Amino acid sequence: MPAPAEFLKYVDAQSDAFISRLSDAVSIASISGDPAYRPKVVEMSNWLNAQLQAVGVTTKQVDLGTHVMDGKTLNLPPAILGRIGEDKSKKTVLIYGHFDVQPASKSDGWDTEPFVLTKHEDGRLIGRGSSDDKGPVLGWVNVLQWHHETQTPLPVNLVFCFEGMEENGSEGLDALVVKERDGWFKGVDCVCISDNYWLNTRTPALTYGLRGLVYFKLNISGPGRDLHSGVFGRTVHEPMTDLISLMSRLVDQGGNILVPGVDDMVSAADTEERALYEKLDYSIADVEAAAGGKIALSQEKTTVLMGRMRLPSLSLHGIEGAFAGPGAKTVIPAKVGGKFSIRLVPPQTPDSVEPLVRTYIESEFAKLGSKNTMELELLHSGRPWVADWKHWNYEAAKIATEAIYKQKPDLTREGGSIPVTLTFAETLNCNVLLLPMGRGDDGAHSTNEKLDRSNFIEGTKLLGTYLYEVAAQAGN
Amino acid sequence: MPAPAEFLKYVDAQSDAFISRLSDAVSIASISGDPAYRPKVVEMSNWLNAQLQAVGVTTKQVDLGTHVMDGKTLNLPPAILGRIGEDKSKKTVLIYGHFDVQPASKSDGWDTEPFVLTKHEDGRLIGRGSSDDKGPVLGWVNVLQWHHETQTPLPVNLVFCFEGMEENGSEGLDALVVKERDGWFKGVDCVCISDNYWLNTRTPALTYGLRGLVYFKLNISGPGRDLHSGVFGRTVHEPMTDLISLMSRLVDQGGNILVPGVDDMVSAADTEERALYEKLDYSIADVEAAAGGKIALSQEKTTVLMGRMRLPSLSLHGIEGAFAGPGAKTVIPAKVGGKFSIRLVPPQTPDSVEPLVRTYIESEFAKLGSKNTMELELLHSGRPWVADWKHWNYEAAKIATEAIYKQKPDLTREGGSIPVTLTFAETLNCNVLLLPMGRGDDGAHSTNEKLDRSNFIEGTKLLGTYLYEVAAQAGN
Ligand SMILES: [Zn+2]
Ligand SMILES: [Zn+2]
Ligand SMILES: [Zn+2]
Ligand SMILES: [Zn+2]
Repeated sequence: MPAPAEFLKYVDAQSDAFISRLSDAVSIASISGDPAYRPKVVEMSNWLNAQLQAVGVTTKQVDLGTHVMDGKTLNLPPAILGRIGEDKSKKTVLIYGHFDVQPASKSDGWDTEPFVLTKHEDGRLIGRGSSDDKGPVLGWVNVLQWHHETQTPLPVNLVFCFEGMEENGSEGLDALVVKERDGWFKGVDCVCISDNYWLNTRTPALTYGLRGLVYFKLNISGPGRDLHSGVFGRTVHEPMTDLISLMSRLVDQGGNILVPGVDDMVSAADTEERALYEKLDYSIADVEAAAGGKIALSQEKTTVLMGRMRLPSLSLHGIEGAFAGPGAKTVIPAKVGGKFSIRLVPPQTPDSVEPLVRTYIESEFAKLGSKNTMELELLHSGRPWVADWKHWNYEAAKIATEAIYKQKPDLTREGGSIPVTLTFAETLNCNVLLLPMGRGDDGAHSTNEKLDRSNFIEGTKLLGTYLYEVAAQAGN
Repeated sequence: MPAPAEFLKYVDAQSDAFISRLSDAVSIASISGDPAYRPKVVEMSNWLNAQLQAVGVTTKQVDLGTHVMDGKTLNLPPAILGRIGEDKSKKTVLIYGHFDVQPASKSDGWDTEPFVLTKHEDGRLIGRGSSDDKGPVLGWVNVLQWHHETQTPLPVNLVFCFEGMEENGSEGLDALVVKERDGWFKGVDCVCISDNYWLNTRTPALTYGLRGLVYFKLNISGPGRDLHSGVFGRTVHEPMTDLISLMSRLVDQGGNILVPGVDDMVSAADTEERALYEKLDYSIADVEAAAGGKIALSQEKTTVLMGRMRLPSLSLHGIEGAFAGPGAKTVIPAKVGGKFSIRLVPPQTPDSVEPLVRTYIESEFAKLGSKNTMELELLHSGRPWVADWKHWNYEAAKIATEAIYKQKPDLTREGGSIPVTLTFAETLNCNVLLLPMGRGDDGAHSTNEKLDRSNFIEGTKLLGTYLYEVAAQAGN
């Protein structure tokens, strides 16, 4: 069931008006991570709430309470819950998005004012939030506008959940999802989130997995205070010597995790799954361009893609308490904390991986024969997520993508995390689809963030068409 | 030839007046490392210059030019050159000391005002500079005072070199020493520096060695910018993985240096030398009390002392460019610089050790098979120094110590560096003696720096007696 041709024509015809509305959204500097901008996030919630109501959505703004930032207690910006359609014969799709943005100022190195949407002649719509995540959110408003103006009933019921704290840990959202599970979110059949990116700049993508994380701090202490290396060098057990030795035993140059059992938990890809990676429109040149250096771990595209998407990874981030400044300080630091983290994939969980790391570190530390003290802290953790990409939700998105882009979408997994995805999947117990609007080079958290005009316009068509294909799948 | 008994009596009788003069010196906050205090360093130079003239020393204050600190060009504080006695039949002893001090403020954790000399009932004279180095400098003034008041000729000719930039790299001093080699310093037979400490709190010491240093920064770079570990973990060669691996190959938990050839350059101690370490009044409990932890590398006193004094040591200081803050940042740092240094002992020199380190690092990096880029920078270096402790200069100091303290002095080497020592030894081509006045727990660069009253008073007697014993040695 393709989307009505009139809808697609309308989107083309209205594209300047749509971009103008995106421009209005970008002009509100809704930076959630800076207390000084909190009123702007609230203004953005109010603005979006009005936009939704104008296209027929029943909404409520939800007070999420307070939180503490920079030592100050602040009101959280209100989330927006919305609903349109109550037809029990139709599927109900939950749409998530966020209206807050990352910080930005021209002095960071932007070529243009970050909160003025700048239309470049090459098609780029440049501005903070253009791609992450105001463009996708307004894509839904665009879809609704045609249905509202033409009084065309939507092919599915829609429920919306838009928040203003995503860039700062989605404070208050998990509790809201749990609270509204049998309330506002009752009867939701599937979820669609448009808040990630294509793998490249050419090929639309559907994303069905995210890695989890365990983040450790490995503390070694011994001296009562920092010591002078002239006076104490070769007389005492130096905490840095122990720490560096332990950190060197965690991962090898090939990216293999040396903690026994961690890599082993993940089974090898079967032929069908391997074929998914072979099909992806991605090259070693792409990964090296993105990294800014010719440093890919392999010249094999599938190896590199599987390393990012379906294998765990271990990165060494740095050391707290060691000498980190410029110059040549001859210090023996008294207490050092090595930071490292492991990205997890199913069936790994923080609960299953953390004990392996702890046992290994304890055993390796014992081998050192050091008189220093070792302590392993788990700072942060999150489970991985993988959806069934053969689910009708994905099938609908695939057909819609082919209809709009005349291309098969890449079926991707992200190496990072979007924690709300797991919250929806587990709390609502339904399939979650990540349906990106923007391209891999949009620079979501960087300077000169952009959304290509064609991604915004064709993406709007894609979102609308997806709803029709969900409805079609329901008939299957 | 012991010092005159009247001199020793005079020192006891004048001790309150001597402490009062030390109090005046401490009250001038001559912090050389802070531009705001530069006038105080100049004031201190003028004050000391007047003190020296008052006890009969011919002086000149020497303009050392300018230097740049915190982006400002500042005048260096004038050094003081002094001379008393021109008798060609006598030995000429060069005395070095410094009148500048480390920064200090009560808020650092001092129990008393750092620039008010506080006499504790346990005998401690607490104040910044009391031990490092105003007490020892004024010890010489005390000695001169009796000779001046009683018109007793000194047993040797004295030349003085006092500077006000020691705590900030002795800027300008090397050039002055070279310039005055055949001028003010002409005819110097030996040097005496009182600017270090006893090994413990009980036993006077003579110090005949200092370690040198090579300080490296090992840079690894690869990505064009910092990367997100979710997106790039297990897809690229991470600079931190390479750096930690290389740093782990430099030193083992026993303090052995793993760079081939470095430890081998130093011959084992022979029976005579080993006996020196066995005789030292020092215990494992002492080193652990000083370090603030039960972390000595060995329970063998001689092993630990030789590790500090006559063996090279390698310490890992930290990493520039890695994540060093609190919290859990999931960054893959793009460029990291590992800082490590090796303390050198004769016959090692920076020129002989640096190539060994470079060759080893290059070969180990090649083994990694990494696509990142490695670069080894030498940030800083200095040669080690060891004096002939059988020289008459040491013999004089030993006899003087036994006369005043009724104890054989510890014959020590310091693990750290006092660069001016090497400058004097090489430029003037003569024996240099380090004759400490203070104890191992004086806290020279810490809060609550102190000099014990008995160390100041007996130390004054020691300095005077040493001059008489130098004269006696000259007769041998
Ligand atoms: Zn986002
Ligand atoms: Zn974002
Ligand atoms: Zn000093
Ligand atoms: Zn000092």
